Amino acid sequence: MKIYQQSLTEMKKIVKRYTQQTTDLKIETSVREILANVRQKKDQALREYELKFDQAKIQDFKIPAEQLTAALNEISPALKQALEHAKRNIISFHQMELENGFIDTRVSGIIRGQKVTPLQRVGLYVPGGTAAYPSTILMAALPAKIAGVDQVIMVTPPQKNGIAPAVLAAAKIAGVDAVYQVGGAQAIAALAYGTESIPPVNKIVGPGNIFVATAKKQVFGQVAIDMVAGPSEIGILADKTADPQELAADLLSQAEHDKRARAMLITNSLELAQKVSQAVDEQLQSLPRKEIAAASVADRGFIAVMNSIPEMFALMNEVAPEHLEIQLADSAQYLSLIRNAGSVFLGRYASEPLGDYLAGPNHVLPTGGTAKFSSPLGVYDFVKKTQFIQFSSAALKADLADITQLARTEGLEGHARAVEQRFK
Amino acid sequence: MKIYQQSLTEMKKIVKRYTQQTTDLKIETSVREILANVRQKKDQALREYELKFDQAKIQDFKIPAEQLTAALNEISPALKQALEHAKRNIISFHQMELENGFIDTRVSGIIRGQKVTPLQRVGLYVPGGTAAYPSTILMAALPAKIAGVDQVIMVTPPQKNGIAPAVLAAAKIAGVDAVYQVGGAQAIAALAYGTESIPPVNKIVGPGNIFVATAKKQVFGQVAIDMVAGPSEIGILADKTADPQELAADLLSQAEHDKRARAMLITNSLELAQKVSQAVDEQLQSLPRKEIAAASVADRGFIAVMNSIPEMFALMNEVAPEHLEIQLADSAQYLSLIRNAGSVFLGRYASEPLGDYLAGPNHVLPTGGTAKFSSPLGVYDFVKKTQFIQFSSAALKADLADITQLARTEGLEGHARAVEQRFK
Repeated sequence: MKIYQQSLTEMKKIVKRYTQQTTDLKIETSVREILANVRQKKDQALREYELKFDQAKIQDFKIPAEQLTAALNEISPALKQALEHAKRNIISFHQMELENGFIDTRVSGIIRGQKVTPLQRVGLYVPGGTAAYPSTILMAALPAKIAGVDQVIMVTPPQKNGIAPAVLAAAKIAGVDAVYQVGGAQAIAALAYGTESIPPVNKIVGPGNIFVATAKKQVFGQVAIDMVAGPSEIGILADKTADPQELAADLLSQAEHDKRARAMLITNSLELAQKVSQAVDEQLQSLPRKEIAAASVADRGFIAVMNSIPEMFALMNEVAPEHLEIQLADSAQYLSLIRNAGSVFLGRYASEPLGDYLAGPNHVLPTGGTAKFSSPLGVYDFVKKTQFIQFSSAALKADLADITQLARTEGLEGHARAVEQRFK
Repeated sequence: MKIYQQSLTEMKKIVKRYTQQTTDLKIETSVREILANVRQKKDQALREYELKFDQAKIQDFKIPAEQLTAALNEISPALKQALEHAKRNIISFHQMELENGFIDTRVSGIIRGQKVTPLQRVGLYVPGGTAAYPSTILMAALPAKIAGVDQVIMVTPPQKNGIAPAVLAAAKIAGVDAVYQVGGAQAIAALAYGTESIPPVNKIVGPGNIFVATAKKQVFGQVAIDMVAGPSEIGILADKTADPQELAADLLSQAEHDKRARAMLITNSLELAQKVSQAVDEQLQSLPRKEIAAASVADRGFIAVMNSIPEMFALMNEVAPEHLEIQLADSAQYLSLIRNAGSVFLGRYASEPLGDYLAGPNHVLPTGGTAKFSSPLGVYDFVKKTQFIQFSSAALKADLADITQLARTEGLEGHARAVEQRFK
């Protein structure tokens, strides 16, 4: 791996290059056309696009409910047990995210408050082929269910040999209400606008390729979306107390996702840097997804050697990684130094794949520096808030002069008169 | 006003027509060009656009801090008092929105939790001219300050006679850290990418015209944004116990905002519908913003007469109005029937402008049906969450089999090996 030994200022510039986002106008135009067609021609457009893009002739988009139940028996007992185990931990973690409304009656004659209401229907996009991860279905559907969403529906591209039993079993275990075989931008359009077969949703979540991501961005406003997901990332902060083989294995566990995945180590030890770099090269040799991981490490991976632990944190907060491992002596003490990260793994035994699968926190996380302003997928993504007030006549009267002052300052005479009308 | 007497099914179709969103490809293209130019040429591009669009030659974008302080003395004592009053109520309401993280230590050897961190820098867009509302500055800046945001900066288009003292005074009272005179899509670009004069922010909030809204949508992903705001709306649910003159005045208080504003009354009384329609026509005559309000009422306003209170709520939840007034006998009892609304005004004395200015809940609210999936602007908009876990060796070992099972099912051998590496 490339090892940098630069000043903090210089390194901040260097890491910026690794997070540049690009847009592709050609893809934007073709996605816009797909959205418009599906909006207008609904199921007919979906069928045409599925034939064109997935070589699939679809009669019924909806997978029969019995097929989901059957899938539970098609997967191995060991896989079923692992999925059920993950489900329990995801539920016990995400229940802590449930929000309550509030009511304020401190001032006589005035009631103010906020209520929390679940969204009615949510759509989950699940990519096809090798990127169809059963674990992601649990991570996206369970928080929606905990929030109280009435209906969670899932779309996923049709597959030559049918949708994988592991995917359908995960949907069943997560309580997904309906699964539709349709993918790409056309699936996003169906979720946003609705078709004869697929009901429109209030929010679309889940990862997807560039067409799916572009379509999500274009329908944003019509429906809510989670963040537009970029390639996966891991950032590790480690000192000489860390085990180079373990760090290398964790870096590669992200690098194997995608050629554009980013594996980053920031350390204060040149010796550790060199050992990790060597261990990465060695471990790469026997990795089944060697080709992908090697490209990711070569093009997008780096090790930065800094002068101090505060510098290490300053640089990592600039990166704002999706996954952040802290492998320093006494890792937990640094929790307050972390400003920007999606999910944090403290200490030697919090290896990143533990969080991907089993620990319970969400693995749908902000990427590409968006951890500076966004959160892991959570129960809070599936509710919205409504404010309310009730005033007595006396309470309104006491505020009358200030309300009309502000209204008339803003040139909104009708606002002033509406309040005055109460006292005519 | 147009009075409908249709079935619920028919009315649901009719209200849909009132919420259709449109996109304008020409504006999208010109905004894209502005964004790219500002990203590349920074201040120089800003100066060119300000000359072109606002006929303003700008040397320094930043308004000197002394000018904000001076503005406090330029406004009337009555206005200053009203702004300070509004500030107190906004703070006392929004403090109830503050979120805590959590930590879970129920299982031996396992620590799981979530911490809440404020965004570092936030940008507030304030429109120019007659749409420059001091009240909106309080509503947007104060929740950010309560959340703990380090720096809140504001952009607003240059004005021929300088930015209005009321606007600068509100910025000062709200604790805005810096004000820059730049507007339109170019201001959004400056906030998203940063220039020599204007630092980049993590989130952009605040209303604006179609260029501002389009620019916000295009930079979404690079930074966070609040919802793309549409024209203002009021929905009123009333029965024969309500006062027609008061309802008419409240409907007009929204209609006067914008020709595209929507004023809607849903009732179970044809008699009330007719009286309100007549009162609207009468009150319109003497309204200073008569031309705007009349166009809004004629083109976008309506009264729907339904058969029952449950039908009234069913239709209103389909509309999902920005502002919802409930003027029924014993209004508060209906709180649980409200599914989709931004802000709710219960009973006769909760006139909508009370919420616009003084009650304390936010007036930056979801419009155009987006209350189905989004919330009023709040403290929660200016924080993000970071998960964390720490496991003991024994706790990780207990989960090893299920983690590797899931990793290998998903074809991610590197994930399995990273965890196994701990026990080599």
